[in-house]
Amino acid sequence: MVPYLKEAGKAIFQDRYVTKANELLVPWDGKHASSIGLIGVPLSKSSISHSGAAFAPQAIRQALSFYTTYSIETGIDLADIAITDYGDIVMHPTDIAKSQKRIAETVGQVVALHPESLWITLGGDHSITCPVVSGWQKQKGKIGIIQFDAHHDLRNLEDGGPTNGTPFRRLIETGVIDGSQLVQIGLRDFANSRAYTEYGKQRGVTMYTIEEVYRLGIETIIEESMKTLADVTAVYVSVDMDVLDQAFAPGCPAIGPGGMDSRTLLHAISLLARDDKVQAIDIVEIDPTIDFRQMTSRLAAWVILQFLKEKSGRQPD
Amino acid sequence: MVPYLKEAGKAIFQDRYVTKANELLVPWDGKHASSIGLIGVPLSKSSISHSGAAFAPQAIRQALSFYTTYSIETGIDLADIAITDYGDIVMHPTDIAKSQKRIAETVGQVVALHPESLWITLGGDHSITCPVVSGWQKQKGKIGIIQFDAHHDLRNLEDGGPTNGTPFRRLIETGVIDGSQLVQIGLRDFANSRAYTEYGKQRGVTMYTIEEVYRLGIETIIEESMKTLADVTAVYVSVDMDVLDQAFAPGCPAIGPGGMDSRTLLHAISLLARDDKVQAIDIVEIDPTIDFRQMTSRLAAWVILQFLKEKSGRQPD
Amino acid sequence: MVPYLKEAGKAIFQDRYVTKANELLVPWDGKHASSIGLIGVPLSKSSISHSGAAFAPQAIRQALSFYTTYSIETGIDLADIAITDYGDIVMHPTDIAKSQKRIAETVGQVVALHPESLWITLGGDHSITCPVVSGWQKQKGKIGIIQFDAHHDLRNLEDGGPTNGTPFRRLIETGVIDGSQLVQIGLRDFANSRAYTEYGKQRGVTMYTIEEVYRLGIETIIEESMKTLADVTAVYVSVDMDVLDQAFAPGCPAIGPGGMDSRTLLHAISLLARDDKVQAIDIVEIDPTIDFRQMTSRLAAWVILQFLKEKSGRQPD
Amino acid sequence: MVPYLKEAGKAIFQDRYVTKANELLVPWDGKHASSIGLIGVPLSKSSISHSGAAFAPQAIRQALSFYTTYSIETGIDLADIAITDYGDIVMHPTDIAKSQKRIAETVGQVVALHPESLWITLGGDHSITCPVVSGWQKQKGKIGIIQFDAHHDLRNLEDGGPTNGTPFRRLIETGVIDGSQLVQIGLRDFANSRAYTEYGKQRGVTMYTIEEVYRLGIETIIEESMKTLADVTAVYVSVDMDVLDQAFAPGCPAIGPGGMDSRTLLHAISLLARDDKVQAIDIVEIDPTIDFRQMTSRLAAWVILQFLKEKSGRQPD
Amino acid sequence: MVPYLKEAGKAIFQDRYVTKANELLVPWDGKHASSIGLIGVPLSKSSISHSGAAFAPQAIRQALSFYTTYSIETGIDLADIAITDYGDIVMHPTDIAKSQKRIAETVGQVVALHPESLWITLGGDHSITCPVVSGWQKQKGKIGIIQFDAHHDLRNLEDGGPTNGTPFRRLIETGVIDGSQLVQIGLRDFANSRAYTEYGKQRGVTMYTIEEVYRLGIETIIEESMKTLADVTAVYVSVDMDVLDQAFAPGCPAIGPGGMDSRTLLHAISLLARDDKVQAIDIVEIDPTIDFRQMTSRLAAWVILQFLKEKSGRQPD
Amino acid sequence: MVPYLKEAGKAIFQDRYVTKANELLVPWDGKHASSIGLIGVPLSKSSISHSGAAFAPQAIRQALSFYTTYSIETGIDLADIAITDYGDIVMHPTDIAKSQKRIAETVGQVVALHPESLWITLGGDHSITCPVVSGWQKQKGKIGIIQFDAHHDLRNLEDGGPTNGTPFRRLIETGVIDGSQLVQIGLRDFANSRAYTEYGKQRGVTMYTIEEVYRLGIETIIEESMKTLADVTAVYVSVDMDVLDQAFAPGCPAIGPGGMDSRTLLHAISLLARDDKVQAIDIVEIDPTIDFRQMTSRLAAWVILQFLKEKSGRQPD
Ligand SMILES: [Ca+2]
Ligand SMILES: [Ca+2]
Ligand SMILES: [Ca+2]
Ligand SMILES: [Ca+2]
Ligand SMILES: [Ca+2]
Ligand SMILES: [Ca+2]
Ligand SMILES: [Ca+2]
Ligand SMILES: [Ca+2]
Ligand SMILES: [Ca+2]
Ligand SMILES: [Ca+2]
Ligand SMILES: [Ca+2]
Ligand SMILES: [Ca+2]
Repeated sequence: MVPYLKEAGKAIFQDRYVTKANELLVPWDGKHASSIGLIGVPLSKSSISHSGAAFAPQAIRQALSFYTTYSIETGIDLADIAITDYGDIVMHPTDIAKSQKRIAETVGQVVALHPESLWITLGGDHSITCPVVSGWQKQKGKIGIIQFDAHHDLRNLEDGGPTNGTPFRRLIETGVIDGSQLVQIGLRDFANSRAYTEYGKQRGVTMYTIEEVYRLGIETIIEESMKTLADVTAVYVSVDMDVLDQAFAPGCPAIGPGGMDSRTLLHAISLLARDDKVQAIDIVEIDPTIDFRQMTSRLAAWVILQFLKEKSGRQPD
Repeated sequence: MVPYLKEAGKAIFQDRYVTKANELLVPWDGKHASSIGLIGVPLSKSSISHSGAAFAPQAIRQALSFYTTYSIETGIDLADIAITDYGDIVMHPTDIAKSQKRIAETVGQVVALHPESLWITLGGDHSITCPVVSGWQKQKGKIGIIQFDAHHDLRNLEDGGPTNGTPFRRLIETGVIDGSQLVQIGLRDFANSRAYTEYGKQRGVTMYTIEEVYRLGIETIIEESMKTLADVTAVYVSVDMDVLDQAFAPGCPAIGPGGMDSRTLLHAISLLARDDKVQAIDIVEIDPTIDFRQMTSRLAAWVILQFLKEKSGRQPD
Repeated sequence: MVPYLKEAGKAIFQDRYVTKANELLVPWDGKHASSIGLIGVPLSKSSISHSGAAFAPQAIRQALSFYTTYSIETGIDLADIAITDYGDIVMHPTDIAKSQKRIAETVGQVVALHPESLWITLGGDHSITCPVVSGWQKQKGKIGIIQFDAHHDLRNLEDGGPTNGTPFRRLIETGVIDGSQLVQIGLRDFANSRAYTEYGKQRGVTMYTIEEVYRLGIETIIEESMKTLADVTAVYVSVDMDVLDQAFAPGCPAIGPGGMDSRTLLHAISLLARDDKVQAIDIVEIDPTIDFRQMTSRLAAWVILQFLKEKSGRQPD
Repeated sequence: MVPYLKEAGKAIFQDRYVTKANELLVPWDGKHASSIGLIGVPLSKSSISHSGAAFAPQAIRQALSFYTTYSIETGIDLADIAITDYGDIVMHPTDIAKSQKRIAETVGQVVALHPESLWITLGGDHSITCPVVSGWQKQKGKIGIIQFDAHHDLRNLEDGGPTNGTPFRRLIETGVIDGSQLVQIGLRDFANSRAYTEYGKQRGVTMYTIEEVYRLGIETIIEESMKTLADVTAVYVSVDMDVLDQAFAPGCPAIGPGGMDSRTLLHAISLLARDDKVQAIDIVEIDPTIDFRQMTSRLAAWVILQFLKEKSGRQPD
Repeated sequence: MVPYLKEAGKAIFQDRYVTKANELLVPWDGKHASSIGLIGVPLSKSSISHSGAAFAPQAIRQALSFYTTYSIETGIDLADIAITDYGDIVMHPTDIAKSQKRIAETVGQVVALHPESLWITLGGDHSITCPVVSGWQKQKGKIGIIQFDAHHDLRNLEDGGPTNGTPFRRLIETGVIDGSQLVQIGLRDFANSRAYTEYGKQRGVTMYTIEEVYRLGIETIIEESMKTLADVTAVYVSVDMDVLDQAFAPGCPAIGPGGMDSRTLLHAISLLARDDKVQAIDIVEIDPTIDFRQMTSRLAAWVILQFLKEKSGRQPD
Repeated sequence: MVPYLKEAGKAIFQDRYVTKANELLVPWDGKHASSIGLIGVPLSKSSISHSGAAFAPQAIRQALSFYTTYSIETGIDLADIAITDYGDIVMHPTDIAKSQKRIAETVGQVVALHPESLWITLGGDHSITCPVVSGWQKQKGKIGIIQFDAHHDLRNLEDGGPTNGTPFRRLIETGVIDGSQLVQIGLRDFANSRAYTEYGKQRGVTMYTIEEVYRLGIETIIEESMKTLADVTAVYVSVDMDVLDQAFAPGCPAIGPGGMDSRTLLHAISLLARDDKVQAIDIVEIDPTIDFRQMTSRLAAWVILQFLKEKSGRQPD
């Protein structure tokens, strides 16, 4: 009736032959769900340093709108996939412990509803991985975790509580995983301390430094990592974007030089996604308030698309 | 069922006793409408200089979320008002004339549906005022326009077509209004040219410079302006935010010193809104991509609220 | 021995006839103290919206270095004053309640050591005023508070806990003050809700809106305010910088138009400081990470200097 | 007479042994021309998304001033070359079709005057390549185009008219080239749609994805590309800077990860420039208003210098 | 012949009825000169703190292009005036004393060529006023200086040499003026030191603080100032933009609150320009690299236009 | 006594098992010194173009706080090392030659006190390397210099005096070194002029371009460089950060594409540090005022840590 009116904010150019990646997101109606779920966890008050990572779920969703669903490299078009967008979990303004409890409960609830789904979680800072995995693991049995990170995140909990420096320590110490179920890739000089490296080794954590990534190649490392986790039933991939060099991910709170380049990370995601055991992924530690042109959220959008591209099966062009 | 999940982007703190101004916006369902309509016109390719004013409708809607509905000065709470948000008009990527035609048609269509509504239009650059008024006027008979602006916007159309420097020239030359139906407030030195001042005078346009605003006081000027427009049936207020000093509206493309302060503008809006003849308002020339902390959009949100505060009637506290 | 070496960061130009205001700060040695104490409270995780106000204590101290100790208007030179800088209170990374408890205890401890001192507290967000006043009040008996703010900060505590929207509610409800001991100056439209205005009135809070400030004049309001607090033994001044118009204090999280100008605020501080009952001041809600050229911290430095200028007595030039 | 006065803006340090690259630019006097011509096309209103690429011609010219004329790698000094700077084409403020017609006509006119010149065109968005090539081709017969781009730019023209997504579609459909005369290098995942890839294939366009660039090597691809274009008489190189990874070209509107690095692009330009058939180049899709420190314009300056270095012949040092 | 080509950077929209203020600038040809001269002095290495004021001459010239030549307040159109732009003085990269010597010599030379001209000098930091006045005064006899500034700029020269804190001290101590020939307007608290206030008083400098500006009104102060300088033959006006409040001149190195608003400054310039004795003006201490949207340079453009508006005589509209 | 109070600015989270790299810095007490000395040289007024490199010493010290002392790649923990921080050298505000003289004298004095120390110097622009080396060399005999730089820095001194374009020319011409004692690595196209390349060759300077770095590999080049300097007694490494590609070091004044990546530079530093002859290093040409998120200072911090990691000996993990 009023042909040129569109809902507020939606009056943008539409090319009839192009599907934007954000169009894959379908808000959850409380009942139906596709085989891929996405959930936002806007928590960053738990960070040791000042962080606006709570803004990342929206920034990443928006960054999906900058890209299409079509992979020219493989001929795969994701246009027919639906991602059920479960929305965001409401955080408590002043009680961080309560916020983390809400995360574990909420993830537990939605995963229980659709245990077969693939899960994409958008942080938030890395502290969220502890409650997210705790909630998710309940439906999964023995799980493995592959963590891309410059840092161990195995800090003691006495000094600062459940910060973004502690998620994997808490997962180990609360018994959700054993150290041997954790593989860390991309660890970097001057980003860790000897005490935590030793803690990890004692607990049986598998560690690959960034120099090992360059020396062995990411393909070898992913292959070894999946062998290390041979006896788990499901693998969770946790992507702390600060595993990347600051030139490629300028929007992480803890940026630095000497990190991974983005092609290597994207290739690693691709390799992991090909394995059916890999059933969940999170992307954390992007602070859109300090990023440049949302570059780091754009890369996060690619991580999601790369993950889905492999999951959707390879069809010849 | 999943208590802490909210729709994507909506998981923000809610105080049960506070209504945010953006909560007044109700997307139009194509059928029902309240007595206040809002429409976004994201056009700025028509600007003489580079402008991102097309982003302003969304920026202003978002700025409403920074404020509440309650006026402590008057005791009025707008919480029970609904603003029907008709959304945005879709622009053509490469045909500006077609975009302007769409604006006139679309505004004409929605105003025809609800001719008694108050209309709030969010530009876009000032070029939109010509088609918006053209569409709106069709339901109104003889109208008056009160324009807050540092500039006449009476440029010739031969040199550059229907730019943001021409809307009032076009309204006069297409016969939508006669020059005597136009009042310009806040005109500034070094922002105009003699030829256009003379054109306006020849056409009977009423003009108040910024020095006159300070010398006579805004109350006198508003009173005189409404007297000048005594014989019209409806008044349209067009607020080019560059009428303000650059210290108060840093996000307009054509900023400069020596302009109005924001209290004066807000007071003027308040005075105008008290008059039942004043039935439409637009806010134009905000470029959110160059603003500082969306200050200028925040002020636009206040212009809307100030307008509605008076329209909603004054109740004792 | 090595004449041109200075301690790291201190090798800056020194004019022998100029004292910079930051030179007044003398780190506390745990024993001796001057009659003026300054303490930093770097807490902003308690804010409802994202805030870096935790960086303000350092930003304000640094801003002092941009100014000298000499008031040409009065002839007063603060060069001989010493401000004992007690340093900053250590916050807990993930336990906001614990941080607030530390604030109350620490302020209680230092004020107990030097109860006769004037106290300058640098926030942090406004949530800190509750524990700071609680600690300070213990040595003072019946106190009054004069709050410069666009907002009441009288929100309920159920919805979000002790946020920056609640400090005065908590002070009232924990019995530190009665509502009649609180004066709020600069309250603004669209920044509050009717429920909290009514709550304040019921509790006997004295309120001045910004329109009243302009209508009555700041001198009258300060005079009336001190009369309202005639029966208290000590007055605490709490300066939420968002009482100012966004043009003058662009670095507050909750900026908006229609606020106070900086001369009016500085004059108010001056008037208050002349009264011996006024014995403490805080400055809150400056987020240096979003400010422009630390303008808002510069203004905070002036608030401090204006306060001290009057306290140090007026000597003829 | 007044020895230390220089023309406004020119009073900068001059080292007698250094020639800056911008000194090669000689404004066209309407008569004489060197064998290298440069022309600016400040059009970006034709872009699908908001773009300030119209500012790029000046930004790139200025970026030349950051570099010298001497190549230490080859011993070549461009100091004796003159580039005739034909200036910029005047765009129409509100009629994009007219602007594009002016481009085709103006390029046609200057190329007709000096058909043997090498032509360097500075966009502007990619829409300009259609009229620029149309004008240039008139003097050239059967031409080939090598396009560096993440995108096909083969969109349909019905949905949005001649945007920056359509230049090569229009060149094909207006018969200026056949699809087989077009080679696209650097195409990327999530930047295109299947429909346009298929359209290109049907039309015989040669396509190299970024993975192919890394797998085959840029030398192989350039060699193959020139073989593909073996039967054309002249080759036009079109460089959309978004072929680069966002880390290397942060100032393009459509940035993303997974792109080419700048050394590879510069090497490709060098290889192409060695071939006498390559007689024209354009650089498009740089928006200086969103770039970081004009990095992308700096890289554009290097593209020009790299092109000229090879064209000027290699002399031993 | 090629109708739509314009010189590089000049292809901008032209309205046949509008003259932009920058069009008044006519580069000096070494022979002819109008009655108004403009000269740029890009020196800021002499600043005590880091300053990019050397970029201001170009920024201010460019800011003139944002404004027209027509004053709607007075009916005066400057379109027929020519400003001879003498260009900029070349600074020495590492010898600041030599740069200052060049300034004095160069200004002396051009003023000697056209001693009757009005002179507009664009700094640079305030250190330039000493050599500029020294050069200019040679043709003038006994001069007066009216300085708008938050600061005295009467620092001792031993501690740091001829910095931007010393120009008026040097003018006094080198005998170019006596202290009684200097009037300072807008001096501010916490921006000076007692020693220099006393020095100024001993030397007979006339001083007006910002509070006096507000208390007495700028008209009274200008009138008194010109009376103070009754026996000089020519008056030089030196405008340090930091006399303004930081809200109005955010681009000065030494910003602060409590300063003049821009309307007051512009009015003062207007009042001064009406006096034939006022024959030269400089504008200093704008650092375009830290300004917001060149606001401070825009204001500088207005200072120039306001000055010329009065000098050009008032014609009825 | 007051447990949660910390010195101003020091109230930050402390993990008991983590040592931050900035904790290694121990301010010099004028008597005792460790075997590693660090000194800041905040001079950048000597730069040809506008530079804030004077802020780099503090920015780099602060960047150390972003990193820990532990190298997970080697198992080395620097936690037991002390770096004696000699502070910064006081520059003269207006006499650059005097500043450079102070640098030579001061470095000479401290090196004479502790001639066996390793020296880390933080510029400042590259002009400082001349006086720093001059001072340091006095205790060393025949020295070698390995310079990482896109530029020769062999400009003539007549045109601009001792700028950042001249340090190595001055070292050669004042006889501190012979050209054969200088190795330049990373020289780049369009960053130099033929005259200075020829000057360097005539003087026997060893030169490696960036293409040679990529062709030969950094290991070969470092090996060859140390052989070239076989007969010196001590080697000074000068790191101009603009040797890096602009994507990796965005904060240098003279950024450009086609440069070294940061891993290569860090590897080179590592290789050099293993040689006992390498006894001093400087890091220059970082302007923190134009950097993005202090990326370039972060990289400088890594250069220091990489240098110390090797110097501290390799212990098995
Ligand atoms: Ca992590
Ligand atoms: Ca990490
Ligand atoms: Ca307008
Ligand atoms: Ca306007
Ligand atoms: Ca508050
Ligand atoms: Ca507030
Ligand atoms: Ca393209
Ligand atoms: Ca593209
Ligand atoms: Ca001054
Ligand atoms: Ca000053
Ligand atoms: Ca260098
Ligand atoms: Ca260099």
